[in-house]
Amino acid sequence: MDILHRIGVEHASPEQVYDALTTLDGLAGWWTEKTTGTTDVGGVIEFHFGPGDIDMEVAQLDPGRSIRWKVVAGPDEWIGTHVQWDLRREGDYTIVLFKHEGWREPVEFMHHCSTKWATFLVSLKQLVETGTGAPDPRDLRISDWH
Amino acid sequence: MDILHRIGVEHASPEQVYDALTTLDGLAGWWTEKTTGTTDVGGVIEFHFGPGDIDMEVAQLDPGRSIRWKVVAGPDEWIGTHVQWDLRREGDYTIVLFKHEGWREPVEFMHHCSTKWATFLVSLKQLVETGTGAPDPRDLRISDWH
Repeated sequence: MDILHRIGVEHASPEQVYDALTTLDGLAGWWTEKTTGTTDVGGVIEFHFGPGDIDMEVAQLDPGRSIRWKVVAGPDEWIGTHVQWDLRREGDYTIVLFKHEGWREPVEFMHHCSTKWATFLVSLKQLVETGTGAPDPRDLRISDWH
Repeated sequence: MDILHRIGVEHASPEQVYDALTTLDGLAGWWTEKTTGTTDVGGVIEFHFGPGDIDMEVAQLDPGRSIRWKVVAGPDEWIGTHVQWDLRREGDYTIVLFKHEGWREPVEFMHHCSTKWATFLVSLKQLVETGTGAPDPRDLRISDWH
């Protein structure tokens, strides 16, 4: 079972979006301000949140085109799942196709993560378009689960 | 294949959220301003958007608890799919579990609709919490597909 999303980043090249997904500064600008680790293939990026950490191993990189992460630490339901980003130019937009794949069950937490990912993708779009995203702890609160 | 989401509406009862999902005024406050039709079981609600209309047959209603719609007109990929809303109280929140179920293929349009539903759920949350949502045509634009 997969979480799917699509956004279009206006007046932006695939390379600009790729940078926001593959550098510590970029990632800290839309997902969580506390981002550490190594962003090369085989490296592990640590995303620190209030409730806990998520560690992503960088499984594949195709510059300007795609990024694949393997979840190596985080919520139980996330372990072993993958996050895939595919980028392409479409007129004046860079289209971002997002997939968080390999969920074992459609648990309530999967519902929450789907909505939360959407708000973080909007944050990514705003970061690249305007220079300011809404990463944790300034992220949009969508429920009692934040 | 299903699109899943979860939001929590703060300081709101399940009945208030149910009203926003089962009255023309409520629906017009978060999804599209141009909402017409009949909201009883067996009725058809017509949601008018710039690019086209979506007609939902009201398949089931359980007051304060759940709503089920069957898509009877709209984009090809939507025909025959269902939208399910489940509501429950959790402390000071009403938790909304959302499912748009029965997609045949994980097409790019499904990615788009998943993200777009998330932004409309945030609009629903804002409507009930503050009195003002962001329905079409004042909705958040997420891409070239709007």
